[in-house]
Amino acid sequence: MEQKKRILTGDRTTGKLHLGHYVGSLQNRVKLQDQYDTFILLADIQALTTHFENPALIRSSIYDVAIDNLSVGLDPEKATIVQQSQITSIAELTEIYSLLVTVNTLRHNPTIKTEAAAYGYDDLTIGFLGYPVSQTADITFCGANLVPVGEDQRPHLELARKIVRRFNDLYGETLTEPEILLSDCPRLAGLDGNAKMGKSLGNAIYLSDDAATVEQKVRGALTDKNRITAHDPGDPDVCVVSRYHQTFDRDEYDEICASCRAGSIGCVACKKKLAAALNTLLDPFREKRAYYEAHMDEVRQIIQAGSDKANRVGNETMRRVKDAMQISL
Amino acid sequence: MEQKKRILTGDRTTGKLHLGHYVGSLQNRVKLQDQYDTFILLADIQALTTHFENPALIRSSIYDVAIDNLSVGLDPEKATIVQQSQITSIAELTEIYSLLVTVNTLRHNPTIKTEAAAYGYDDLTIGFLGYPVSQTADITFCGANLVPVGEDQRPHLELARKIVRRFNDLYGETLTEPEILLSDCPRLAGLDGNAKMGKSLGNAIYLSDDAATVEQKVRGALTDKNRITAHDPGDPDVCVVSRYHQTFDRDEYDEICASCRAGSIGCVACKKKLAAALNTLLDPFREKRAYYEAHMDEVRQIIQAGSDKANRVGNETMRRVKDAMQISL
Ligand code: SF4
Ligand code: SF4
Repeated sequence: MEQKKRILTGDRTTGKLHLGHYVGSLQNRVKLQDQYDTFILLADIQALTTHFENPALIRSSIYDVAIDNLSVGLDPEKATIVQQSQITSIAELTEIYSLLVTVNTLRHNPTIKTEAAAYGYDDLTIGFLGYPVSQTADITFCGANLVPVGEDQRPHLELARKIVRRFNDLYGETLTEPEILLSDCPRLAGLDGNAKMGKSLGNAIYLSDDAATVEQKVRGALTDKNRITAHDPGDPDVCVVSRYHQTFDRDEYDEICASCRAGSIGCVACKKKLAAALNTLLDPFREKRAYYEAHMDEVRQIIQAGSDKANRVGNETMRRVKDAMQISL
Repeated sequence: MEQKKRILTGDRTTGKLHLGHYVGSLQNRVKLQDQYDTFILLADIQALTTHFENPALIRSSIYDVAIDNLSVGLDPEKATIVQQSQITSIAELTEIYSLLVTVNTLRHNPTIKTEAAAYGYDDLTIGFLGYPVSQTADITFCGANLVPVGEDQRPHLELARKIVRRFNDLYGETLTEPEILLSDCPRLAGLDGNAKMGKSLGNAIYLSDDAATVEQKVRGALTDKNRITAHDPGDPDVCVVSRYHQTFDRDEYDEICASCRAGSIGCVACKKKLAAALNTLLDPFREKRAYYEAHMDEVRQIIQAGSDKANRVGNETMRRVKDAMQISL
């Protein structure tokens, strides 16, 4: 029997996950878990690089993000859910890779520059500057073969590959060089038309929102602002609601666009349809969520069992790394 | 019974230790082990920050430095000898402290600037730049109360104290703030008169040198260059040999200076006296060394037992750190 290839994916634990995460990553992750040995990282240490002053948020998010993953169909029998801060080999590998990467390499990294600017940082912490190094440790502690990310994350993966090659060149073939598993998932716009859905932007529908909340949020979504009455012809191309129909209500999308252009459907009705489609998607997630929220100790055990397994895998990696570096006693 | 205070000290594993280390640190360390609970770090990860391309040197130095410590009288029943790379909590704490220290703080650190210049580095690795953060982890994983260092190391200890206060302010009193145990040990000049004894300078007497080697090295030491014959009056103030007499042959020092000035002792005889004094110091060390070199497995066990104990202590620290940061499950 051929062994499944391993993938490493995960989420920063800085808040609940929303539909943008679902469309951009979780949906794909659920499909991949049958084909690949999946490790999902609850990235609490990485979350701390930007949120170290808010430990309470990180704490609750560890559970929230775990439940978000479980609720959409990640199966703990197939996917290993791992709390990053528990994995000692990630910290150990981060220290070792830090020997091989210069400050300037990271300072000139365009993704870091962009992210630092987004957070308004001018004097970066070592932890923030070094997070791509830490990410390389995330990928390699478990010997992941593939990392499912979008094109925008390619520079980080290239750095990880470079670090792995540098290590293997210096100390002999030891680490698995990861490959990108390019996912061309659409990026979901926010309800307000902002290109990105995000908690801080207040334009997000959470996987944990109840049906009434979804309806209410969709009612407030940006539509064709030039449309005054329900009989005016509208332009679905400038309307967020139509884009959501395209993503979540594929079968009805063409008809909705036609009706909108013809002025034969009103925005209120159109939004009701969308909310219904979203709730149809979310209902089975809610059922699973209700189960896990009633069984929090089981969630804790899933994370603990996953982290224990990940530590076994990571400690084995460290054994090989230390042998290669000749620092095993 | 009051618990002994703990001290943390150690050596980078980048080569055998020499008389400069003995005078500057080991001698004091032997005295302190009765009064304090002593942790001695074999700093192989820190050694890698400058020597990652030479794993074979680091490997042999782990054992060499352990035996150097044991040979001068460090007692494994009193002092805990620890291999840095084995201590997962040091790596974990380094990651966490990296969240609290900025790149600029480290770049503007005068000690780092000096050391980077000494190594000829212009583009520092993250590991090199971050080593004072890692050193803070070395000190705090075991809750050291005191760190015996010279005045030149004060800035690093001040940074460590600052990181500890920052952590305790953010997450509640958790970590022990270390204090400096100022050791005003003399710095031993090299045999060539260079202010510093060092392997790369080729001017060092190693604790592991045999008697004949010591004699031969002392014969080559810098003396008063203006002295042509043994009857010329000499100037002990410009002579390295006299400085060594002052350090290692205290009782005879005044008489030797007088004889030198009077031209009643020749440099050859003076150096013989010094070599004899050094060999008197080193002989008991050689005896212990011979024992350990014949029992390398015992050395391995001493390092392993010390590292195991250190991991127990460090894991307990991590438990409290994670509780404070609310990332315990
Ligand atoms: S009818 Fe639907 S697609 Fe058209 S503008 Fe209104 S909400 Fe948008
Ligand atoms: S006699 Fe001794 S102290 Fe005087 S110059 Fe010679 S070696 Fe130095």
